Amino acid sequence: MNFRIIIKRLGTVLLILSACMIPSLIVSIIFSEKGWITFATPIAVIFFIGIVMQSIKATSSDVFIREGFAIVSFSWIIVSLFGALPYILSKSIPNALDAIFESISGFTTTGASVLTDIESLPKSIIFWRSSTNWMGGMGVLVLLIAVMPTVKGNNLFILKAESPGPSTEKIVPKIKNTAKLLYLIYITLTIIQVIFLLFGGMSLFDSLVHSFSTAGTGGFSSKTASIGAFNNLYIEIVITIFMFLFGINFTLYFLLLKGNLKNVFKDEELQFYTIVIIFSVALISLNTFGRIYNSFGQALRYSSFQVCSIITTTGFSTFDYNLWPLFSQTILIILMFTGACSGSTSGGLKCIRILMLFKIARREISKRIHPRAVSVITLNGKKVEEKDVYSILVYLAVYAIILLLGVFIISLDNKDFLTTLSSVISTINNIGPSLGAAGPAGNFAQFSPLSKVVFSFLMLIGRLEMYPLLMLIVPKFWTKQNI
Amino acid sequence: MNFRIIIKRLGTVLLILSACMIPSLIVSIIFSEKGWITFATPIAVIFFIGIVMQSIKATSSDVFIREGFAIVSFSWIIVSLFGALPYILSKSIPNALDAIFESISGFTTTGASVLTDIESLPKSIIFWRSSTNWMGGMGVLVLLIAVMPTVKGNNLFILKAESPGPSTEKIVPKIKNTAKLLYLIYITLTIIQVIFLLFGGMSLFDSLVHSFSTAGTGGFSSKTASIGAFNNLYIEIVITIFMFLFGINFTLYFLLLKGNLKNVFKDEELQFYTIVIIFSVALISLNTFGRIYNSFGQALRYSSFQVCSIITTTGFSTFDYNLWPLFSQTILIILMFTGACSGSTSGGLKCIRILMLFKIARREISKRIHPRAVSVITLNGKKVEEKDVYSILVYLAVYAIILLLGVFIISLDNKDFLTTLSSVISTINNIGPSLGAAGPAGNFAQFSPLSKVVFSFLMLIGRLEMYPLLMLIVPKFWTKQNI
Repeated sequence: MNFRIIIKRLGTVLLILSACMIPSLIVSIIFSEKGWITFATPIAVIFFIGIVMQSIKATSSDVFIREGFAIVSFSWIIVSLFGALPYILSKSIPNALDAIFESISGFTTTGASVLTDIESLPKSIIFWRSSTNWMGGMGVLVLLIAVMPTVKGNNLFILKAESPGPSTEKIVPKIKNTAKLLYLIYITLTIIQVIFLLFGGMSLFDSLVHSFSTAGTGGFSSKTASIGAFNNLYIEIVITIFMFLFGINFTLYFLLLKGNLKNVFKDEELQFYTIVIIFSVALISLNTFGRIYNSFGQALRYSSFQVCSIITTTGFSTFDYNLWPLFSQTILIILMFTGACSGSTSGGLKCIRILMLFKIARREISKRIHPRAVSVITLNGKKVEEKDVYSILVYLAVYAIILLLGVFIISLDNKDFLTTLSSVISTINNIGPSLGAAGPAGNFAQFSPLSKVVFSFLMLIGRLEMYPLLMLIVPKFWTKQNI
Repeated sequence: MNFRIIIKRLGTVLLILSACMIPSLIVSIIFSEKGWITFATPIAVIFFIGIVMQSIKATSSDVFIREGFAIVSFSWIIVSLFGALPYILSKSIPNALDAIFESISGFTTTGASVLTDIESLPKSIIFWRSSTNWMGGMGVLVLLIAVMPTVKGNNLFILKAESPGPSTEKIVPKIKNTAKLLYLIYITLTIIQVIFLLFGGMSLFDSLVHSFSTAGTGGFSSKTASIGAFNNLYIEIVITIFMFLFGINFTLYFLLLKGNLKNVFKDEELQFYTIVIIFSVALISLNTFGRIYNSFGQALRYSSFQVCSIITTTGFSTFDYNLWPLFSQTILIILMFTGACSGSTSGGLKCIRILMLFKIARREISKRIHPRAVSVITLNGKKVEEKDVYSILVYLAVYAIILLLGVFIISLDNKDFLTTLSSVISTINNIGPSLGAAGPAGNFAQFSPLSKVVFSFLMLIGRLEMYPLLMLIVPKFWTKQNI
């Protein structure tokens, strides 16, 4: 293992983190907060540590697959740890474990919170929370690749590990340019959302905060009651649409820019994503209309917002869906697993895996009727390799094991079952609020320290799609020679 | 599709069913019940229909894979339908849907009940309920193969479809002899259990009823409070041990008879099954001791009984585990999925699949560290074929889809989430009681007719391990020519 190059890269990551704190410092100064020092100090400290780590002399700049995994995993861990400093220094979250939980929740774009009163926080801290959502959405290392001079090594691998989903590819021949392009689309869409929110009468501060959280599908808000606090139909519609847009594979935006409309609309994952949303909204509207809402319009309004919020794993809310009938809640739970499209900023299993699962199941049943018939699975008109079919199935298996282990440990807290299970589902899929006591009206402060550590691990493992983090606990990962 | 041979075989199945009702008729006569006619009538009717169906002239006796699937699926459906007649005629369960639910629950060895007061039932009906557990345990068609003159066709396939688990094999060269041997072991173990229970002071009637339900891992009791009603440590220990024994792969008993002890104790599935039980009992004992039970011995007594009852998917109870802390309940839920060994009478995913899942996950993580390394998965010292690895993964995927669909529909009943989810888990894995409102102190009478239909489907699909029943809904199954 080339430890020197790992430390060197982690140094660069810290420099980027330090730079990303500057906007929050500016916010602090603009609002004349006494606490500007809570950003100035970490910026200086992180910058200094970053410089020291980056200056390490690496005898070789080779990044093999194991170094790649180590860089990805440790980047997320150190970014989360150092990113917690403003919470601790500002005494917004004095407890270090809670602050780290909030930081991991932010960077992994989960949006689960231990805070009970957001409005009482300094503006700069609210801004920092949403900034972590935004950075984590596209990925800290993708940013690193985009801004760094080209280096030798497994950068495509890093890109894949950070922008999860089985379909991540290079859009343009050079990885560096792909990363740049991804950030360009990301920034443009964010700016457009800010403009739309400003039109709705939202303050610039709130517009930025909510656009950041929407773009990263994180869901941190400046209000304790989330988007429900605004009670504004226009704002809800804008955010619903942008949540949907940030749930689409970014490659499709590139195709759109190139005028390749046909391939965009023929994309099976996009079709599946859209159909699932339409059906879910329809079913929840029918289920809640008359029971919870007096008009069908109202049912449609709240259900469409919540469906888009959950399927994209954003986690904003406009209504306490714990009051919905169980059928509607069950749909939300299923959507938590689904997630949005691969190559988007969303979490969850991703629509492409669910779609493939149905295709695999259908083939298996056919195969049992006609064992000798040869059948291939196609996606977007192309044959899917059997090794990719296998990968999706194994992913599901590993995911199921981790999920059950999570429920197993969290159940030690002896909460009710719905809270326990849905909180595990919510964190591993990076949604944020769950159902029951940790629902949109609740928070994660109630859990034990052990549970918070487990949730933190689940959020990280979910964001990085299992393997990078799991590898760190395999002894062979550390001892064996490169092959 | 060779419909004539299907009808012919179903006729034979009905003849067997009719014969299996005779002991219940005898029980009815012994206890001088007025309702003996409730058995005499169905015996005559089913016998007559069976004779007519069996007398159909089949131009060809070929049973191909599709005919095999059709025979398996339809056998279970008609046996369940006709097996409900005694419940309806005796007015024990006047509602036809409820009676069919109880019948399916019996034959699939689930043991979920719509009945609220078992003691008030005629003895013959109680006997019939447990008889269905016993028949369903080893399988109606395995019995057919054992008693029928050898016929051409896919009998190994039928054996595999009925005694689920990936490892079902012919123990001896002839399938007919394998089926006979399986029943011989089954009958012997059942008789030994009856003797042990008689020694404990249990009446012959209760000993037979509980031995039948233990052997089939069904769990129907003659008491509303299940085994808890006896409040007898000796009886609990005997039943715990026999539940454990009926959860072991029957092939291992054959090896034991041949004196091949080494291979029995080296069986990885048996080891896994035993270790899971020991750990679960230890954890639940520690978790409940002091909170629920005053002595550790008491905690051990109730937890070991319940763990064996749930992992073998029997579903007997001696304590309302809804009162346990959530951690202990979560262990029970995980054990519901696990099931006991393949080739036993238990339901669930089977230990072998869970064990393989861990092996597959471990290999996948290794593979990602060393992508070019060749690694095979072994079980009991033998290489597992990649197509079998794939089969296990696909099975898990199909299972997950069906499970989620089940939860989706049952949630329309708007019960609490624990009741909804655990009832689906309990029926698809053929356990019986679930947690929450359908726990050991509750029952399934409270659910809507739609839910009862869905539960019935889940019990059947779980017992036959997904595919035979799923195939019936594929149009191609009916239309295409044999290949």
